[in-house]
Amino acid sequence: MLAGGPSRRGNALSSRVQLLLAIVGLLAAPVILLASTFSRSHPVPRAITALEINNNLVKDHKIVTPPDLLSQCEEKFFTQTLDHFDVGAPTYQQRYFVCDQHFRQGGVMFFYVGNEADVELYLNHTGLMWENAQEFGAMLVFAEHRYFGKSVPFGKDVTKHMQYLSTEQAIADYAVLITYLKGEYERDVPVIGFGGSYGGMLGSWFRMKYPHIIDGVIAGSAPILSFLGDEVPLDKGAFERIVTFDASEDAGSAPNCIPNIRRTWSVMRKLGATEQGRQQLKRAFSLCDGVKINSEKDVDDVMSWAKDAFDYMGMGNYPYPSSYIMNGVSVLPAYPVRAACSHVADEFAADDDIGLLTAFSKSLGVYYNSTHDQECFGLSASNNESALDADFWDYIFCAEIYQPQAVDGVNDMFWPIPWNFTADNEHCKAEWGVEIRPLWATTQYGGRKALKVASNIVFSNGNYDPWSGTGVLQNYSDSVVALTVKGGAHHLDLMFSNDLDTPSVLAVREAEKEHMHKWASEFYERKAAVVTE
Amino acid sequence: MLAGGPSRRGNALSSRVQLLLAIVGLLAAPVILLASTFSRSHPVPRAITALEINNNLVKDHKIVTPPDLLSQCEEKFFTQTLDHFDVGAPTYQQRYFVCDQHFRQGGVMFFYVGNEADVELYLNHTGLMWENAQEFGAMLVFAEHRYFGKSVPFGKDVTKHMQYLSTEQAIADYAVLITYLKGEYERDVPVIGFGGSYGGMLGSWFRMKYPHIIDGVIAGSAPILSFLGDEVPLDKGAFERIVTFDASEDAGSAPNCIPNIRRTWSVMRKLGATEQGRQQLKRAFSLCDGVKINSEKDVDDVMSWAKDAFDYMGMGNYPYPSSYIMNGVSVLPAYPVRAACSHVADEFAADDDIGLLTAFSKSLGVYYNSTHDQECFGLSASNNESALDADFWDYIFCAEIYQPQAVDGVNDMFWPIPWNFTADNEHCKAEWGVEIRPLWATTQYGGRKALKVASNIVFSNGNYDPWSGTGVLQNYSDSVVALTVKGGAHHLDLMFSNDLDTPSVLAVREAEKEHMHKWASEFYERKAAVVTE
Repeated sequence: MLAGGPSRRGNALSSRVQLLLAIVGLLAAPVILLASTFSRSHPVPRAITALEINNNLVKDHKIVTPPDLLSQCEEKFFTQTLDHFDVGAPTYQQRYFVCDQHFRQGGVMFFYVGNEADVELYLNHTGLMWENAQEFGAMLVFAEHRYFGKSVPFGKDVTKHMQYLSTEQAIADYAVLITYLKGEYERDVPVIGFGGSYGGMLGSWFRMKYPHIIDGVIAGSAPILSFLGDEVPLDKGAFERIVTFDASEDAGSAPNCIPNIRRTWSVMRKLGATEQGRQQLKRAFSLCDGVKINSEKDVDDVMSWAKDAFDYMGMGNYPYPSSYIMNGVSVLPAYPVRAACSHVADEFAADDDIGLLTAFSKSLGVYYNSTHDQECFGLSASNNESALDADFWDYIFCAEIYQPQAVDGVNDMFWPIPWNFTADNEHCKAEWGVEIRPLWATTQYGGRKALKVASNIVFSNGNYDPWSGTGVLQNYSDSVVALTVKGGAHHLDLMFSNDLDTPSVLAVREAEKEHMHKWASEFYERKAAVVTE
Repeated sequence: MLAGGPSRRGNALSSRVQLLLAIVGLLAAPVILLASTFSRSHPVPRAITALEINNNLVKDHKIVTPPDLLSQCEEKFFTQTLDHFDVGAPTYQQRYFVCDQHFRQGGVMFFYVGNEADVELYLNHTGLMWENAQEFGAMLVFAEHRYFGKSVPFGKDVTKHMQYLSTEQAIADYAVLITYLKGEYERDVPVIGFGGSYGGMLGSWFRMKYPHIIDGVIAGSAPILSFLGDEVPLDKGAFERIVTFDASEDAGSAPNCIPNIRRTWSVMRKLGATEQGRQQLKRAFSLCDGVKINSEKDVDDVMSWAKDAFDYMGMGNYPYPSSYIMNGVSVLPAYPVRAACSHVADEFAADDDIGLLTAFSKSLGVYYNSTHDQECFGLSASNNESALDADFWDYIFCAEIYQPQAVDGVNDMFWPIPWNFTADNEHCKAEWGVEIRPLWATTQYGGRKALKVASNIVFSNGNYDPWSGTGVLQNYSDSVVALTVKGGAHHLDLMFSNDLDTPSVLAVREAEKEHMHKWASEFYERKAAVVTE
């Protein structure tokens, strides 16, 4: 899951950075609009298949996702009730994969807690499950989140029935599915959950709410402290502060990167004030002919579009080339923020605004032209998330897990974008007819207070990951622990091993394995005690 | 909450003993029918008011509920969403009482986790909260369970909207209400929950699911191990086995009680085989003229009606006269099972079937003629629960917390009533259009496995209480503990103090207070740590 940017709808320049597997929830609609309006060689957003991911293997870039994982799994469907808390509700077919070749007696179930995309994406990227299957004698289960992938209720009418899309229902799906699988396979085994980003949030909440069903959870990059109402006030500016850190010398980027990027905003605003300036800006940025830059508002949109690139590159700031942030369709280079910063590494003379913007445009190309085949920029998002997935994420955000954000332009390299609850709420009302419940996530899931009584959750966070700022960064007990992946971005530890893995991510994976072994042992000890009692 | 008896609808003589504050879910409809058909001087079932309870104080019987508790409280209403997991759902008004005169800084909130009746009943009977308010500096909150008392959504159309009646929604109501109250009163204080019977079940589940909101729970007589699918098979026969224990010499009843009661069933069946016998039976039992005993099926109904009396007297087998089991309207004597057994204490000659039945009829009168004003029995239930409350309990039972029971006639003093899932399910389908999910309660709430990871719950059970057999009777940790009230029935420890309290219940209340103090201290220690971090 990744971040989006602030809403660019209307004047609602609020600070809503979204939590998405692969992108910009609120930008989805404008993206589609632009993509169909302006000609450019950019893949149309669509669902990703494993075949595509494998076809996109770029071996010389050291992307080494093992091929053909899907063929090692059985695709299955399970009849779930849409409302677990209302026995009379209709049902839907939940998809899941079982990859069973490594299971043995005394083994475990590794359970991927699906998040907001086609579950094949997680199946193909969650190397931590695959690479430990043999050692743990694990059957792998990848469960798809309701409303995503092939687990969509009501077919084409799905958007008329949004009320069943909720975190509580999704977690209850997993509880029911695991209960069913234990019976169906006649395997009373420990269950270890894995989830990244929103999947990590769901995974940690799953353990808190159903500890009798899931024995422990590896929660990668799960920003469960991103809500209002906790006992410590929310750090709303964390996300962009860490994006900015990624562009700093301390994170390996060019020393001039941050000052140059800060300067671009004022340059853009200055140029944006006149028609002549806007045309200069358009040329310097290599925007496509069809893109209209006719007002200061249009320039604001360009600024947000530029900022989005850094939001996503920050999340995808991995030590090797990866297609994950791009939903498997294209590849970002190793440390994309460093790559982007390399284009603005020089000092630009005070009168060389155009030189700066031209260079900055190349920075943005690291993200928006990751396919290396675009001749101009169309202001669309570029991460290939499907429009429907983006909409569904937006619904979840509006309905349950509202994550306020703010940008101050002081602790980060952007411009002030104050938190604007009213604008966010207006968006949610207009789009979905729902009012945000700002305290709901903390009421339901408990924030720090819940962590103090939880058990068996490993929270991992990369210090390059903008979401780490609202993740769990301290131990709460021997079994609720925080692991830091130094030099890692969004749930790097869940990915397949890579020659360019840092020592830190290797150490984190080893520590995670220790916890997993402990959870499995505890399960079998408890089970033995029951039998003999 | 109390037990009902097996369903007497049609031929479905299954073993469904129900968990009700004040009674017989499945019997409600027949009860109403009979009550309107047959003349007898019995109060019509209706909601109970505190005034009625107080009017029923029987001082010479040592019922010493302090008068006028309601006047010490403020009645309030809170706008709750009917579906916490669907932001667009409609709302309803949840009633609660705040009794605030003992609160002080550094104090606590005592929160009654409402169950299946008008919350005034709990307000008037939960002495443990009132009597400790001053020592703890506690504000008392009594929250009404949705669909009961004055917290009924949709007014007269409520039965058309049953889908919002669920344990998860009820618990979420309490989570939201407490969060609101802490803000409204500006009191960041520990919250200690209290609940008896189904309220104790909800309370313990509330702590398991929302430990960040409720700091500890006193769960009186909460049979949370009464479900299928747990790691240890359900003891389906526990309820009637303990009713039988209550009628034994070990529990203070007449030695001849159990053998005489066993004999009554075969006598009834023998007499029931002929028209002449049925008329003898009717006379011996003092059944009203209007009661038709025309078939063996009618005799089966009389047997079930007789058994129900012992089910309820078992739950209400308190050491002093109490109106609690009778919903505050009438009073059962001290140790009502002993009182009932005293009428069948003699040996009856082998040819004195009629003498036995006549005596047994007097046993039943302890329960069915607790008002001492009935000239004959009408085969109705007698505990004054409202028909609507009984229906709502039946819905909860069918929708979520299906508690299978079986009677074997060997370990208990009744006749074999095997568990019959099919019949139970047919009932639920016919009545509510819902199919029972036999594993749901264990999937959602976890049974023994959940207890192993829970914290801060005191489970108390009286060994005279038939529900204790599926309650928590062993410690699971230092903070999930089981306390036994020797000689106590259904959540005796939650009641007001009484001169006739046993040493055991006094000790249990002291132990509960120790846990409550510990929970409060832990809260303030954690809070201090947050402030200084």
